[in-house]
Amino acid sequence: MSEVRDLALRARAASMRVATSSTTERDDALRAMAAAMIDRADEVLEANAADMKAAESAGTPPPLLDRLMLDRSRIEGIASAISTLALQADPLGQVVSGSRMANGIWLQQVRVPIGVVAMIYEARPNVTADAAALCVKTGNAVILRGGSLAIRSCLAITRVLAEAATGAGLPADAIQSIGSTDRAATDELMSLHGLVDVLIPRGGAGLIRSVVENSKVPVIETGVGNCHVYLHGSADPTMARRIVVNAKCQRPGVCNAAESLLVDESTYESVLPPILKALEASGVDVRGDERTCALHAIDHISLAGEDDWGAEYLDLRMSVKVVSGLDEAIEHINRYGTKHTEAIVTEDYEAARRFLDEVDAAAVFVNASTRFTDGAEFGLGAEIGISTQKLHARGPMGLVALTTTKYMGLGNGQIRE
Amino acid sequence: MSEVRDLALRARAASMRVATSSTTERDDALRAMAAAMIDRADEVLEANAADMKAAESAGTPPPLLDRLMLDRSRIEGIASAISTLALQADPLGQVVSGSRMANGIWLQQVRVPIGVVAMIYEARPNVTADAAALCVKTGNAVILRGGSLAIRSCLAITRVLAEAATGAGLPADAIQSIGSTDRAATDELMSLHGLVDVLIPRGGAGLIRSVVENSKVPVIETGVGNCHVYLHGSADPTMARRIVVNAKCQRPGVCNAAESLLVDESTYESVLPPILKALEASGVDVRGDERTCALHAIDHISLAGEDDWGAEYLDLRMSVKVVSGLDEAIEHINRYGTKHTEAIVTEDYEAARRFLDEVDAAAVFVNASTRFTDGAEFGLGAEIGISTQKLHARGPMGLVALTTTKYMGLGNGQIRE
Repeated sequence: MSEVRDLALRARAASMRVATSSTTERDDALRAMAAAMIDRADEVLEANAADMKAAESAGTPPPLLDRLMLDRSRIEGIASAISTLALQADPLGQVVSGSRMANGIWLQQVRVPIGVVAMIYEARPNVTADAAALCVKTGNAVILRGGSLAIRSCLAITRVLAEAATGAGLPADAIQSIGSTDRAATDELMSLHGLVDVLIPRGGAGLIRSVVENSKVPVIETGVGNCHVYLHGSADPTMARRIVVNAKCQRPGVCNAAESLLVDESTYESVLPPILKALEASGVDVRGDERTCALHAIDHISLAGEDDWGAEYLDLRMSVKVVSGLDEAIEHINRYGTKHTEAIVTEDYEAARRFLDEVDAAAVFVNASTRFTDGAEFGLGAEIGISTQKLHARGPMGLVALTTTKYMGLGNGQIRE
Repeated sequence: MSEVRDLALRARAASMRVATSSTTERDDALRAMAAAMIDRADEVLEANAADMKAAESAGTPPPLLDRLMLDRSRIEGIASAISTLALQADPLGQVVSGSRMANGIWLQQVRVPIGVVAMIYEARPNVTADAAALCVKTGNAVILRGGSLAIRSCLAITRVLAEAATGAGLPADAIQSIGSTDRAATDELMSLHGLVDVLIPRGGAGLIRSVVENSKVPVIETGVGNCHVYLHGSADPTMARRIVVNAKCQRPGVCNAAESLLVDESTYESVLPPILKALEASGVDVRGDERTCALHAIDHISLAGEDDWGAEYLDLRMSVKVVSGLDEAIEHINRYGTKHTEAIVTEDYEAARRFLDEVDAAAVFVNASTRFTDGAEFGLGAEIGISTQKLHARGPMGLVALTTTKYMGLGNGQIRE
């Protein structure tokens, strides 16, 4: 039997036992896991140093190296996040709905773990710890499949956390990482329908697309965001500028950063120049349509191509387009957007109402930055990602997204007539 | 462009307009659709007669012919189901959660349509009408892909319903059927990730498996049920017999019928013989394990093979196994069951509690027939199927399963610090 299948069978067996553990047992395990991250930091740092050395030799670009790198302070951050999770309310066992059936059966719909959760991700060692902790909290067994660049760090973190969880009484196979970095291992993981209940890819658009297209296991798509800010003709120019600059520049590498700006043709000649200047001053590479470029408001601007409208830059770059009005703005967003987060700036009641109603996205804002689509901002506590699909969970996913429900019916001899 | 892709593009455009229609518009459309089914019954019956004739010539077995056949009374049943749907509460627009964010943004999570729903099903013309009506009610556009045996009926029903919906003001492409019965059309439909939001297969295990394995569009798995009744040593023998016979025989061809009976070894010698006799009297073909056969309680019994434990017979057939107790029963069910519906008969409090907790299924019953897992019985109103997966919806799916949510944030200039 292959490593992956064997590991999944063991995860399934473990999942049955984690599912019936108590809140106290799971929270104790989380505290033990947090403590072990600190106590065994040297072991993790040593593995990470080996990953870093290999990645540097391979000419890995600096932003990726930064994501890969762990130090004592980052490990403390990871441990602190795990401890915090132990303090959050347990979603399991919550009675979601219930009634007495006409025939007298007492029916309740109860929140339970999903079972076996698999995560496929890239060179971020911290995702290993996040995912393991979130799955322990929600009573799931987890199979982790980190990228090859971070494999030593991922395996070390997995070993530390799994041993701590086992020490606290959870089954040994509740937290496992796939050791092999072969593509074949990923393919096999994606084929284990029936053994793995859900697969969550976290990483770039390429990884997510590949998982969506190839997985036989149900997938939750996360995090690709081509987000727009649309400036309606009635927008307050100062608010418009502040929101655009914040949505683009406050943290350009994340999925809820804005990538594209749409401006009504009725006002673009006056509204756009100060915004373009502010973007330029923040180091943004602007790609404008013909009318935007013809404003000659800034020195460095290039003509946007068709590819720009659909691009998720994740960088200090923004496309800008003049539109005829609300209808074209909504149509453009529904065509090119990734259904993540969209924002309108307007003082017009009906424009706000129609934008909220007609734009198809996980989150739609009026007069606020796109950057607010976030589990912590929304008050969800720990976040496992932002779903851009419509099934199961949409938008920022908290602990509840890692659960399902079970109907329990208590009868006293009922049969169906 | 292929027929299927073109049809999906038109469905997507239509979905934007259905999504923003009012409850009144959608309910009026449903009433018009119900009336059209009656007014244009001859057109549907003529198409169905052609399907029946072709199916008979092809030597289609009688149970399948019965599913395919429409008559005036069945059409009245379909029309009545559509009218009833117009009276159900609208799930759309419901505010699922909401809060004022710390920065003053008013946040609400609102129930909205999924978008484009596709159904792949076999030779049941009524599914065409059910699915179209449920999607109109929930503001979705629907793409129907009926089996080749029923294709003329499906296309006729689609035409009648789509024209009625259009007459009532809904967009023309909100209800569409795929005309081609080529396998390639199904394959293309399953590849339309991004255009189709969800695919729901309804039919036999083979169809469902094929869709799950090949679809790039998110799937909701429905309805395969290898359901068990487990008789704990403490079970009341009379209640046990009544529940087993009801679960097996009341309607053996449906997914919540029981396929397998487990009995504790402490009591099987006394409990099993009257149950086997009752099953035999109801015409059930019993497949027992060695100990069950050795009881010689009935004349016709055959030895069960490994295949029987995992089989969904959908017929008057039942496998019977003696188990050492609760642990083996739970282990057997979690190994061979399809996570649909499982039942225990017991007078023991702790056995009931553990069975409810440890059996992994959409619905678990104590002292009641498995046959109760049903949207109408659970008070959900119209049912679009019974989900046996854990994501999005689990168990009987009502209208809410055809919706998703959207976060709406109303700000007044908030930016993220």
